[in-house]
This record gives sequence, C-alpha cells and structure tokens, in this order.
Amino acid sequence: MKFKYNLEQKSKRNNARLGSFIYNGKKYETPMFMPVGTNATVKTLSPEEIKEIGCGIILANTYHLWLRPGEDIVAQAGGLHKFMNYDGPILTDSGGFQVFSLANPKDITDEGVHFKNHLNGDKLFLTPEKSIDIQMKLGSDIVMSFDECVKWPSTREYIENSVNRTLDWAKRGKEVFTSKDQMLFGIVQGGEYEDLREKCAKELVKMDFDGYSVGGTSVGEDKKTMYKMVSYATKYLPDDKLRYLMGVGDPIDLIENVMRGIDIFDCVSPTRLARHGHAYTKHGKINLKNSSYKEDFSKIDENCNCYACKHYTKAYIRHLITANETFGARLLSIHNIAFLTNLMQDIRENIKNDTLEEFRDKFILEYYGEDYDYEQKNY
Amino acid sequence: MKFKYNLEQKSKRNNARLGSFIYNGKKYETPMFMPVGTNATVKTLSPEEIKEIGCGIILANTYHLWLRPGEDIVAQAGGLHKFMNYDGPILTDSGGFQVFSLANPKDITDEGVHFKNHLNGDKLFLTPEKSIDIQMKLGSDIVMSFDECVKWPSTREYIENSVNRTLDWAKRGKEVFTSKDQMLFGIVQGGEYEDLREKCAKELVKMDFDGYSVGGTSVGEDKKTMYKMVSYATKYLPDDKLRYLMGVGDPIDLIENVMRGIDIFDCVSPTRLARHGHAYTKHGKINLKNSSYKEDFSKIDENCNCYACKHYTKAYIRHLITANETFGARLLSIHNIAFLTNLMQDIRENIKNDTLEEFRDKFILEYYGEDYDYEQKNY
Repeated sequence: MKFKYNLEQKSKRNNARLGSFIYNGKKYETPMFMPVGTNATVKTLSPEEIKEIGCGIILANTYHLWLRPGEDIVAQAGGLHKFMNYDGPILTDSGGFQVFSLANPKDITDEGVHFKNHLNGDKLFLTPEKSIDIQMKLGSDIVMSFDECVKWPSTREYIENSVNRTLDWAKRGKEVFTSKDQMLFGIVQGGEYEDLREKCAKELVKMDFDGYSVGGTSVGEDKKTMYKMVSYATKYLPDDKLRYLMGVGDPIDLIENVMRGIDIFDCVSPTRLARHGHAYTKHGKINLKNSSYKEDFSKIDENCNCYACKHYTKAYIRHLITANETFGARLLSIHNIAFLTNLMQDIRENIKNDTLEEFRDKFILEYYGEDYDYEQKNY
Repeated sequence: MKFKYNLEQKSKRNNARLGSFIYNGKKYETPMFMPVGTNATVKTLSPEEIKEIGCGIILANTYHLWLRPGEDIVAQAGGLHKFMNYDGPILTDSGGFQVFSLANPKDITDEGVHFKNHLNGDKLFLTPEKSIDIQMKLGSDIVMSFDECVKWPSTREYIENSVNRTLDWAKRGKEVFTSKDQMLFGIVQGGEYEDLREKCAKELVKMDFDGYSVGGTSVGEDKKTMYKMVSYATKYLPDDKLRYLMGVGDPIDLIENVMRGIDIFDCVSPTRLARHGHAYTKHGKINLKNSSYKEDFSKIDENCNCYACKHYTKAYIRHLITANETFGARLLSIHNIAFLTNLMQDIRENIKNDTLEEFRDKFILEYYGEDYDYEQKNY
C-alpha cells in the first residue's frame, strides 16, 4: 500500500535527514536498512524474527520471483505479503541488476534486454513494461523503475547514452504503472559525472515519481567515487520523497551515505556473511570458523540485544557453522541484520543531536581501526 | 537432572501405558515422541520452536558431539542444556549406532569397537566406559548404556553371544557411571528370540537401571518382527520405569509399539523428510516438490495447529523447497514434528479412554488406506 514520507529533521552540518512514515498503522523511521528476501524469504529467517529485530521494509527480487515461482502464482496467492506472511512494507527491485549481469552487451537494446534464464538457459526478454507488470503482480509496496545497470568503468559517452535510455525506460514504465496501491520509484543514473547525475535526477523529478533511487553504485567503484555519485544525485532530489541507495551495506557506507542524503539501503551482506560464518562486531567483522572461537563462551557482542547474543556463545555458533547446521546461519543472520538495524538507530539518534560526524569518526576508529583509508571520507 | 516416572494408567486391553514426570517444575506426559538434535540442535529449529510444538525430551548424538565440538567443550560450556539453550530434558544415545555402522565385524571386540572417524579418517576406539564418560561430560539427563547394535539378519548364535556382551557392557558402564544428576538406561537386545529378550531384560532389571530401552529394531526387519521384539522385551520390564524404543518414528509404529508398552520414541524421520520436501498428513506423506502443489494455496493440514499450518500455504512451502531456501525445511520440520507430537497426544487421549485399538484402525485407514498390510498388526 502507499505511504507518505515525512521529513522530520535535517542536519545543519551535512545532508543527513531524519524521517518517518506510517504503514499499516505502524510508524517506521528512516534512515533504515532493508534486509534482502530474494525468494520471498529473508534467508533462514521467519517474518517474526525480522520484525523482532526491528526491521521495516524488506526487499524481494523481481528477477528471481519472476522465474520461480512466477509472478502469477504470487498474484494468485494474494500478493507477496500474503504469500510470505509479512505485514510490513515490501520493496521489489526491477530485475535489472540480475538481468544485466546475465546479458551480453549486444543483447542490451533500447527496447529491453535479452538474456538467458540462469536456472534452465531459456531465452528471456525483459523490458521496462514487463518489469513493471511483474512487480504489479507481485504486489510489493514500492516498485522500482527498470534502469540500465552500467558496468564500471564505462566511457562518458556510454553513460550519457545510458542516462537517456534509463530516462526513456522510466517514462515507459510509468506509463504502464496503473496500480493504485503501490508506489513507483525512479532511478538516478549518470556514473561519476555531476552533470549527468543532475540531468537524470531533474528529468526524473519532472516525471514526479513517488520516490527516487540512486543507481550505478556498488559496481566496483572506490568509496570516494561512490560517495561523490550519491552527493551528485541527492542534490537534485526533492526533500519530501524517500531516497534509496541500492545494494550498499558496508557499515561505513551506511553512515557516509546518510550524510549525503540517503534514507533507505538494502544489501545481501548481513545474510550472506552469516552463511559463511562471519559476524559484525563493533570492532569489525569476525570469522567464527576461526579456531580461536572454539572455546570462546562469550557472546558475539556483549552489548547486542539480539536473540543470538541473548542466548548463545561464539563457541556454540562456531560449532553449528562447522557442522553445517543451518541454525548457525540463522543465528548469525539475526545478529548481522540486528547489527545494521541497530547501527541505523544510532545514526538516527546522532542526526537528532546533529552529531553524526563525530559518531562516524568514533565508529571508524572502533570498527576499522588502523586499516581505514581516512582519505576517502573527505572526497 | 533426575526425574521420576509416574505410571498413571494402564490399558485393560493391551500393554499401553499413560505416564508422566516432572522436570524443571514442568509436567511432561508419556507416551512421547522425542525429536533428534544430532549436533546439539534439532536441524533448522530453535529451542523455542521445539517447545512451542509441545515437545519434551530431545535427543542428542554422543558420537557426533564427541567428534565435534568434543565433550570437553560442551562440559566447559556448562553441559548440553546451557550449550544449546534448551531447558527441557535431554537424552543422549551411546554412540553405538553410528560406531557399529562404521566398524568392520573384526573390529568389534569384547573390549570395545575400533572404527574410523567419518570426518577425517582418524582411528578411534569406543568402549562402554568411554561412552558413559562422554555422556557424563555432555550432561544429558538420560544416559544410554553402550550396547552392541547387531546387524539384521544375524544367526541365533551371534545374537546369543551379543546379548552376553551387551550385558557385560551394561555392567561395565554402570560401574563407571558416577553422576548424581543423570539417569542411566539399560538396553534390551536379543533379536527376534523371546528367550534371549527375556534373559537380557531380566539381567538388566537385576542391575537396576533408571529406565530401559529396546534395541535391535529398525535395522531392516519387517514390522511384524519389530512388534514381536518389542513385546518380548517389554514383558519383562518393571512398571515403574520408562521404556524407550530407539530409532522408531513411522506413525503406525508409534501406535503399535505404545500398545506393546513403549513410553518414549526418537527418530530422525520428521526432520529428514522435511529437508527432502515431505510432509506428514492425516492421509499419508506428501512430497511438496510435486508440481501439483504449485498453485495449491491450502495449508498442509487444515486442522493442524502448528506455526507452518497457521501461516503458510503448500504453494509457498513448495516454492521455498524448490528454491533451496532453508526456511522451507524449517517450516516442514515444525509441521512434521508437530504431526508426531499431536499423534502422541491423540494416543494418550485414547489410552485414557482405552480406545487405542479403534484409534489405530481408523488411523491406518486414513493414513495408509488400501496400501496397508493389514496382516502385520496381528502378528
């Protein structure tokens, strides 16, 4: 269903924003981290666990659900919320990210993208209209425009043409978007070029989307470049709409990009790291497969309030991970999502007090220590 | 910790028994099904989920925990209950079942069993004393004697010698069992020979164990033979001690063996079937991978009160299973364990009313239908 973003406070020192929205009678605050539920399930977790952690919006992948079980089956089930038993807000991506990673350059045309289904090799064709159609059937709350995910690095000429294509696709998608219960977001592309980001943002704003996303990051660029791209894009976006940075989840990137005006983030990192036995801690990531945790009967983080930290020791979780017991990945998924969710809460607290820069500096020192490239925070 | 079994009611028509015990201030009723938590975790599930289903005792595997993480680490953690965060009763097996499946016949001696660790090939030696020592360190509530798991079929001569060995091992184990907080069970062997079962049971009872188990079933014998073995063994066991049938979980076997005097059962079936996409229903097992469930938006069982049946459809669970999402196995594990747990509740209700035979006949008709070998229930 549709909801209205309320801008509650803006930092006087940077572009960080505090906001909120009401969904299904419940208030959600931004900035917010959104866990990824690729196949209409946040890997290893129940909807109740997601809610207990304090998550709000979750993301589901259009490409994966299109292929399996198919958007018509989800529609028959009554939409994603009913299908997966989640009564919080759901955002679907456009499918573009997966499709572009499967397509050859010659298969990317102005009409759409030809590619092969990764499950059975079938030839498929995804267009802006088709992406919107699938997402309308999935019944998410936030629908993403189909944009071109440009490889990094690309020439200025390619990115210039790609911005035009992305704008054309945004328009075509908007034309077929007839849903009254969903919101449609536009995606700002333009690589590392300020003028292209400006042009793309301004044109999208003219089309009047329900929110805006910053695309073309997390594709191999360095952090400085990512932060620049975000700053260039958010500069031209309206205050009263949500801004979403796609696929970004490194803790410092959450802080830095909030300072550049981002409200919502998604990333597979917390659940993917969990499946590999990694846990976030205030002092950086740790690998529980490491034998040093074999007899470590302390919590992952003594100050963490998550279910995993309340009841289980590193030694037990390490045992589960080494024995390939999925309860281990489940406990680490809970902890890692809670870590990012709690980080967002700290970020909101520090926006309130306008102390986010001091918080960032302290966080970097604790989390990254000497290893951090201190240059990158001042692009 | 130790608890006392209270026999509450005996059937006038067969050997079914209704009983109970108090553990940690909570009353548990028997007959009961115990889910298996091989590696100190019931696969895919949390302790809270286990308790919500209504389970009581859970089983953990001595062999697996001996190898990984090692009994000393579990002991350092404060024992299995603390290690895995389960405050209900825990039973450990002796390790014998796994060890005998790894050993060559010539490696089975009166002293113990030589075999190779299945994880790294290391040579290991398990004796009755070692098994008890490991289980004392694990800190389970019910410790099993180390017995010889005889292959099926074996000669009468082999089984006769094996009964003597099992009795000797039970005695040796009991001698080193110094724990004040745990209970030690003896295991009745003797194959399909009534006189050998009688001898084994009577000798064990003389040694005065805290409870008794029936071994040597579920090793490939037909159901008629299994039921005979159980009847022969329970006949000579005292009324005031728990009787445990190891590794049996087929629904009809639970009913038939309750009628032959069994109180507690364990089996990996409900969780293993779940991982393969199978679910118990009143009308038999179904395979959710079957494409007929693709658009089936009904519950697995409309009358089931489990978490999976409360919130999810067959179509969704099928989707999770085909997409290899562990939440699918988790939902099916919950349902399958709930199915057997609810079946035990029905069994207890029917012992109360002494209508278990009618219940059995109705259950067979619904669950197995025409496929059931009606001969086997009247051996």
